[in-house]
Amino acid sequence: MRFTTERRLDGDVLEREITLGEVPGVLWTPASASAPVPLILLGHPPLGLRAMYPRLVARAHRAAVDGFASATIELPGSGDRPRWAALDQARADMRRAVAAGGPVGAEIVDALILPLADRAVREWRAALDALLSLPEIGGPVGYAGGVISIGVRLAVAEPRIVAAGLFAGSFVPRVVFEEARQVTIPLHVLLQWDDEGNDRQAALELFDAFGSREKTLHANMGGHTGVPPFAGEDAAGFFARHLRPPGDDRHR
Amino acid sequence: MRFTTERRLDGDVLEREITLGEVPGVLWTPASASAPVPLILLGHPPLGLRAMYPRLVARAHRAAVDGFASATIELPGSGDRPRWAALDQARADMRRAVAAGGPVGAEIVDALILPLADRAVREWRAALDALLSLPEIGGPVGYAGGVISIGVRLAVAEPRIVAAGLFAGSFVPRVVFEEARQVTIPLHVLLQWDDEGNDRQAALELFDAFGSREKTLHANMGGHTGVPPFAGEDAAGFFARHLRPPGDDRHR
Repeated sequence: MRFTTERRLDGDVLEREITLGEVPGVLWTPASASAPVPLILLGHPPLGLRAMYPRLVARAHRAAVDGFASATIELPGSGDRPRWAALDQARADMRRAVAAGGPVGAEIVDALILPLADRAVREWRAALDALLSLPEIGGPVGYAGGVISIGVRLAVAEPRIVAAGLFAGSFVPRVVFEEARQVTIPLHVLLQWDDEGNDRQAALELFDAFGSREKTLHANMGGHTGVPPFAGEDAAGFFARHLRPPGDDRHR
Repeated sequence: MRFTTERRLDGDVLEREITLGEVPGVLWTPASASAPVPLILLGHPPLGLRAMYPRLVARAHRAAVDGFASATIELPGSGDRPRWAALDQARADMRRAVAAGGPVGAEIVDALILPLADRAVREWRAALDALLSLPEIGGPVGYAGGVISIGVRLAVAEPRIVAAGLFAGSFVPRVVFEEARQVTIPLHVLLQWDDEGNDRQAALELFDAFGSREKTLHANMGGHTGVPPFAGEDAAGFFARHLRPPGDDRHR
């Protein structure tokens, strides 16, 4: 892992751009932390880090206030990374299927999500190796964010992740739906009740399928991008409960 | 309204038992408040105030920490109040229907819930008149707690209630389900995912029916009485957002 830029943001947050092999990313740490801190991996949809930056940095700020480092990496085929022809093709097929208005076939969902999730999970795990080798980052580790299939597969594959905040989606391959039963870490699942891109019933069934003993569904009004600000407060409370050392009762 | 007992609880809370006509109740206020405070009406299932006291006083404590008064009254036919023969009969019919394992008929639900909700709403409104006449209580007013049909009808009837935290139930008369569409105040709805006494799908449909632009469903694992402690934290955050004067950022 190499650091390529470094700057201090308002609110005592150190922002460093990183590269891990070919994969660019960003690491945010509480600038004044005196001991290794827990880490939240910030997932996001495949729209490119530049487009996602405003939302990611807001979450990174909140994490730093709570005493956590946070980090994100670019997804394969997104942003400044090389195009991935098969992924572009699968995306085009998905868009056509959605525009046609009918149900989207399982083979279209599988072709888009499975290769993306496989590669993203490998890259997230490599990033986690590198991040945890930094002296300023300890643990435990949480994962928070979009592409629910990536979150599910990462939670199943990666024992270092102890809690996950997921964004409910319905374009979930059958194989991932089945893997959801193997997820046992505490989960905090956001659902947008009128999400134009997701089927509510399918999202509720996925929530039901998770094997976790502690799982909470927070459903809010509005469309895909209309998550209300207070939903972030509740998610922050979830990570504070699961990542903070016992006895640390700072502001939440 | 008469005060019948008064004692100071740990944590700077003044607890006073009250009677409003024939109706007993309890009022909790932050003992050291120097200005009139908002009020949360604490609803509860018809099991009697004595049985509900431990849960109610915990919620009252949290309300006081957040700078709110809270109050509850005994439901008609419950606790130390005179038996209500028609209600006892309706309860026995409901218990028989549930024990029989089949779907519970609408007439059984209506017979149990509608008279109870009518009378309870009248009594809650009278209590609200009396409570708001106290110099130590200002507003705004929230309602939080069980018997969702009472919460719905109170929210429709009582313009002084500006936010409500409800406990999702499925034994909801059709007429109350229709009235839910008239509820427009912000709502925070708790659902126990494996509630043995409630049908999950019916509870989700009721949540969908509410007319409120801001409504949030928090679904947690476990049965009817298994609401996790962190659900109370999130509910407290909801009331802090809606009842606190702007600029008041104390601990949440």
